[in-house]
Amino acid sequence: MSASPILTFSSDFGAREYYTGAVKGAILTVNPEARIVDISHEIASHDILEAAFTLCCFYSTFPPGTIHLIVVDPGVGSRRRALIAVSEPYLFVAPDNGVLSLVEERRPFSMVVSLESPQYFRHPVSTTFHARDVFGPVAAWLSRGVDPMSFGPEIEDYVKLSVPPVRKIDDHRMEGVILHIDKFGNAITNLASSRIKKLFGSDRRPAEFRVNGRVVDRHCEYYFQEKAGLAFSITGSSGYYEIAAKMESAARLLGLKRGMKVELILQPGNGG
Amino acid sequence: MSASPILTFSSDFGAREYYTGAVKGAILTVNPEARIVDISHEIASHDILEAAFTLCCFYSTFPPGTIHLIVVDPGVGSRRRALIAVSEPYLFVAPDNGVLSLVEERRPFSMVVSLESPQYFRHPVSTTFHARDVFGPVAAWLSRGVDPMSFGPEIEDYVKLSVPPVRKIDDHRMEGVILHIDKFGNAITNLASSRIKKLFGSDRRPAEFRVNGRVVDRHCEYYFQEKAGLAFSITGSSGYYEIAAKMESAARLLGLKRGMKVELILQPGNGG
Amino acid sequence: MSASPILTFSSDFGAREYYTGAVKGAILTVNPEARIVDISHEIASHDILEAAFTLCCFYSTFPPGTIHLIVVDPGVGSRRRALIAVSEPYLFVAPDNGVLSLVEERRPFSMVVSLESPQYFRHPVSTTFHARDVFGPVAAWLSRGVDPMSFGPEIEDYVKLSVPPVRKIDDHRMEGVILHIDKFGNAITNLASSRIKKLFGSDRRPAEFRVNGRVVDRHCEYYFQEKAGLAFSITGSSGYYEIAAKMESAARLLGLKRGMKVELILQPGNGG
Repeated sequence: MSASPILTFSSDFGAREYYTGAVKGAILTVNPEARIVDISHEIASHDILEAAFTLCCFYSTFPPGTIHLIVVDPGVGSRRRALIAVSEPYLFVAPDNGVLSLVEERRPFSMVVSLESPQYFRHPVSTTFHARDVFGPVAAWLSRGVDPMSFGPEIEDYVKLSVPPVRKIDDHRMEGVILHIDKFGNAITNLASSRIKKLFGSDRRPAEFRVNGRVVDRHCEYYFQEKAGLAFSITGSSGYYEIAAKMESAARLLGLKRGMKVELILQPGNGG
Repeated sequence: MSASPILTFSSDFGAREYYTGAVKGAILTVNPEARIVDISHEIASHDILEAAFTLCCFYSTFPPGTIHLIVVDPGVGSRRRALIAVSEPYLFVAPDNGVLSLVEERRPFSMVVSLESPQYFRHPVSTTFHARDVFGPVAAWLSRGVDPMSFGPEIEDYVKLSVPPVRKIDDHRMEGVILHIDKFGNAITNLASSRIKKLFGSDRRPAEFRVNGRVVDRHCEYYFQEKAGLAFSITGSSGYYEIAAKMESAARLLGLKRGMKVELILQPGNGG
Repeated sequence: MSASPILTFSSDFGAREYYTGAVKGAILTVNPEARIVDISHEIASHDILEAAFTLCCFYSTFPPGTIHLIVVDPGVGSRRRALIAVSEPYLFVAPDNGVLSLVEERRPFSMVVSLESPQYFRHPVSTTFHARDVFGPVAAWLSRGVDPMSFGPEIEDYVKLSVPPVRKIDDHRMEGVILHIDKFGNAITNLASSRIKKLFGSDRRPAEFRVNGRVVDRHCEYYFQEKAGLAFSITGSSGYYEIAAKMESAARLLGLKRGMKVELILQPGNGG
């Protein structure tokens, strides 16, 4: 392919700060041909789970060969390691803090490398800004075709995030959590029809969701289907069930917050 | 021209969410050479009028051949149609909800096509995220040179937004509304000197604006001209009159909000 | 180099507005090959010092030949001049209001040109949006290789910002200010080890910082080093000392705000 390599960039650096600009400059200094695609820089500060959720929802829409750089890194400068994870046809560059865990659940890694070859870093390496001095330059060298194995030793003991669990309560109930409240006020859970199949077999579908003392027993195909003021469940674009409402915030309507437990009551039927 | 095709992208998806990232990936999967230019993803959620205003203020600065993708789409997944609108030298891709109406007022469409050819969609097509599965891929195929007529039938009954009206009150007064309050607190109206000419002939100019019980009778050429604490009117960069103040928010100063009626009293004179 | 020219773009226009989109279109109309890199458009409105700080922290990470466009321009349309500043290997395009002063402290300009050649502007030139009509197009012409001297006369009396001063109090104390509170709540001062060397010689290092009636006497190498709830100082990635805390906002912890005075007590030792 003649197009320049694509490098996505996600972080918690904030749209107001110079930090993303400094990283982009460091990348382009190594590879002036790199095409940097901004995803989000407004991930909540230090929020590894939100970063992991963000990444797992967009990475697979990109063309083969894309390098995904994600930096939410409260441990910067400490002994936490820095990683390249390989999962064909993608490469991931990130701190070793579990931010890649949700991707790995969906797409096992064929190799994970610890970044220990300083010739690929920007010097002097600061102790507070590895995105500029380590992660960005490494992603840029990858985009120039350097082999992942050149950056350091392969490791297997990288950090796994303790992802909020989905558990089976009894033969018609399961429990999960709200993973994310989006800009529209949709409450995205970690429950999905694929999980129902895995835990119960395929002949179940949602009957109702219970969350924050409220019952949500309408399931819609699209946001505009229900009348105003009523919350409903819907299968979101990332495959997870969401609690939503028509042109208003379901989170506000029902008082939902991230991390709240969600109980799902199942009924016989095909999928959700 | 050897440069890759330009594709602008505006939405209400929010800078924090993964949604824009997923759309960009879907576009680049269809056309890895596309150059995506972010405009704004912070349009107010579901606000078709704000999106229409945004689009009509920037689209014409882009070079010929640019494809403008704009997704503010509360009706996603319902029976609302999806469109390509052709207005040489630009192409527009958007839901059929009126978001293109202000562009059409300035630049009539030569053709509007309803998107009905699933071979140009990303599959499976979700019911909640057509930006990723329909609009983005279609814009990308357009950027590869596919003829707009390949995407579906030509239609004429597309939705027109009921744009806030400008009306003549009597032979020296007209009325409009505040279209937008910008980041600086400037209140942008839908009144323009071109409208004065159309409704009254060309020998009138603004004498004073009345809004929220306040009178604004100073007209400035630039923001720094007036002293602090005084609101004035000014001809904004999009051609509309604005109520502004020097280095502070005119909206806060006068208590202005979007949608408020604005009365404009005219006096003899050349233009505004 | 075969890669297209890089043009960074920073402003106070806001992520929600159409303004950045209109500027990008104007740039690409002049040079469709230009690669525009967004830095931040959320600089505080009219805040020339914040813009100057932002610029001086990222510009030098970019490859040689990069053109840096920065528009925070409360005086737009008045008689304030517009500038190109040359400092090999970079070019800067900005209003003449001091926004380049912190760059110049680090990297003297070899030439500053006043933009007076209207053939490089977009016409008609509005009085309220020179980013679209003057700065953007000029940056784009520069990216096409036009000589800076073609744009107007060389000048020497351009505006210098009265940057917050760093001063020596006595033989072991100096005083500066908080330049910026970042998204993480880190309070970035204008004090740096390079300033200590300049004012005191090289055998001093920080003993404690005093700010807002509080004493900060721990110095850490990285953010994760200290236990929760304790503020410490750290050498930030831009070379300035910061007051920080582990995974929380030091600004909130100590009640810090931009512009507050910071006293630094020194002790014998090597650097900071």
